[in-house]
Amino acid sequence: MIATTTAAPHVVVVPDSFKGSLSATEVAEAVGAGVLAAAPDARVTSLAMADGGEGTLDALLTTWRTEVRTVPTVDAIGRPTTARWATSPDGRVGVVELAEASGLPGVSDVPLEPLHAHTRGTGEVAAAVLDAGVEEVLVCLGGSASTDGGAGILTGLGARLLDADGVDVPAGGEGLARVASLDLSGLHPRAREVRWRLAVDVTNPLVGEHGAAAVFGPQKGARPGDVAFLDEVLTCWANLLERETGVRVHELPGAGAAGGVPAALAAVLGARLEPGAGLVAEAIGLPEALADATLVLTGEGSFDSQSVRGKVADGVARLAAASPARPPVVVLAGRVTLPAAQARAAGIAAAFSIAPGPIDLDDLLPRTAERLTDLAASVTALVLAARP
Amino acid sequence: MIATTTAAPHVVVVPDSFKGSLSATEVAEAVGAGVLAAAPDARVTSLAMADGGEGTLDALLTTWRTEVRTVPTVDAIGRPTTARWATSPDGRVGVVELAEASGLPGVSDVPLEPLHAHTRGTGEVAAAVLDAGVEEVLVCLGGSASTDGGAGILTGLGARLLDADGVDVPAGGEGLARVASLDLSGLHPRAREVRWRLAVDVTNPLVGEHGAAAVFGPQKGARPGDVAFLDEVLTCWANLLERETGVRVHELPGAGAAGGVPAALAAVLGARLEPGAGLVAEAIGLPEALADATLVLTGEGSFDSQSVRGKVADGVARLAAASPARPPVVVLAGRVTLPAAQARAAGIAAAFSIAPGPIDLDDLLPRTAERLTDLAASVTALVLAARP
Repeated sequence: MIATTTAAPHVVVVPDSFKGSLSATEVAEAVGAGVLAAAPDARVTSLAMADGGEGTLDALLTTWRTEVRTVPTVDAIGRPTTARWATSPDGRVGVVELAEASGLPGVSDVPLEPLHAHTRGTGEVAAAVLDAGVEEVLVCLGGSASTDGGAGILTGLGARLLDADGVDVPAGGEGLARVASLDLSGLHPRAREVRWRLAVDVTNPLVGEHGAAAVFGPQKGARPGDVAFLDEVLTCWANLLERETGVRVHELPGAGAAGGVPAALAAVLGARLEPGAGLVAEAIGLPEALADATLVLTGEGSFDSQSVRGKVADGVARLAAASPARPPVVVLAGRVTLPAAQARAAGIAAAFSIAPGPIDLDDLLPRTAERLTDLAASVTALVLAARP
Repeated sequence: MIATTTAAPHVVVVPDSFKGSLSATEVAEAVGAGVLAAAPDARVTSLAMADGGEGTLDALLTTWRTEVRTVPTVDAIGRPTTARWATSPDGRVGVVELAEASGLPGVSDVPLEPLHAHTRGTGEVAAAVLDAGVEEVLVCLGGSASTDGGAGILTGLGARLLDADGVDVPAGGEGLARVASLDLSGLHPRAREVRWRLAVDVTNPLVGEHGAAAVFGPQKGARPGDVAFLDEVLTCWANLLERETGVRVHELPGAGAAGGVPAALAAVLGARLEPGAGLVAEAIGLPEALADATLVLTGEGSFDSQSVRGKVADGVARLAAASPARPPVVVLAGRVTLPAAQARAAGIAAAFSIAPGPIDLDDLLPRTAERLTDLAASVTALVLAARP
């Protein structure tokens, strides 16, 4: 056996939220406390992680510790509202979470309007972000109320959607049916200067049986007739976008996210669609943190087959495997249903449930933080004991 | 970082049984399968562990792979029965489990007889073990039906307990009240040549408020009056033993185990009382197995505050800490209630429950083996990933 000088361990704590229980920040606090209980000399880097969907803005704000910015705008049915956004500490990256202005929760007080809901508010938020001088706009999709192919975002950024008579069409899918041309002359002057990155966790195309209207329309209130109508509208919209920009988005994987938002942003603004977890990981500086990590602790409410397909654990594992230290990644979860072999295949050394034995969900939920601390202490102690 | 040549890992699997679910051997099989799933090149040493109480004979037989020996004898109330015993592969150690001949389960078909139950059968088994030529007799206590101060074992080995008229007294606590002298002339010729080791997990003294009659009498059917009588009888018996052998057992910690069996064996045969887990660990060759271990996996149904007081996990942890490799010890349990900090203080790096999340006991029990395999795979993968 060779005696090695063992530096103080560096543990990176980078959990998702435990939905319905603790925010990512609260999880990170509980886990970090456990790490330090087992290894008082450890260096702990706590980063709130997210998968690019709802909650991502909060996670980034926690990690960046930058000021919450707000802007008055309109919600998914045009009512006045206020939306939050943020920039990275260096001011280079601006973050827009679609659900802030254009989300379903914001219009949950009225009947769903599948043909009229739109994303104009998110476009206005994006305009504010561009005004702040960012070089890159990160748009977190998920939780949208609309199926407007991203047309609303374009209008929020100053573009005009005109009918055959040159008159602005109303916002929403129904209005989109009447668009004959796109006037980009009023587009925000910085809109085509910055890099647009869209956090997308689905691979659904814009149209067809797996498209935005067919798959996600019903949960936004679309009845079968609406779905068929909206699918047709999106097809026409994709045709128009191709005609106006030369970019074909009909088959673009992921263009069906958030009611087709990526279609407009990819065609008009050159936006790139990226797995949300990887995008967020980069934004919070996870690759840098992992470079000398001894152990990586992530977590989420349920660790299942979805977790290793673009979710937080998957994103963390990919980056850990690519880091020079190649630290083991351990998932702490409320529930673990993915077999160990499948976790290992995804680069996750181990996944442990916080359940201390047979227990009811109602009894476990209030103990989540306590159990996370205890479990993190166990895992940390084990990893340190396993080092020579 | 220094590149070290990493030899194939050696994982020692040494669990207790999961009471009401799997035997120690079945647990070891399930855990070993998980180790190999995560580390196909690993060397796995599987040893069934026990704490010196009921089930120890089975664990030793599994590990030793020696023949089960049987001997006709009598049960705790004198009825014919058959008892099992075993010897180590080299024939040097013989094992007697008190519960085989003199246990409560063997007389569960009739009303309890706290004043008449005895250990004569265990003495007869011990005589058979001595006949086999062993050098050491390991007596596993626990599960006894009697409170006879071990007098029955002595008579089973050929001693005589005589009343004031020189007549043999009846077996059991009531008869013991009339003993006036001890005739050891007929004692098995090898009884005082061999080393006697008693696996004892309690520290109760022979008599008094924490003594054999007061603490353990009631579960053997003793009513308050019986308890007072038996306590008085055991006191007289201790006085007699001191008079006859010069050995005082009144205050001997652990002499109150199994109805006072250690009293007679310590005084007459020089028996040593030892924590059961350590004794069993030595018998199965655990210290040798741990010498080059990478990881030690133990387990039991419930990992709680009792576990680190002389039970299996405690015994394993002590030996691991004393071994040159100092391998991390991990407990896999149905239920984990001991806080991580207390586990670490006892030399256990981590304890994990097989519960995959909120779940009913009835749903978890049939999944015990499957979950043990998965959990063992996770722990093994983590430990190997943590090595440089």
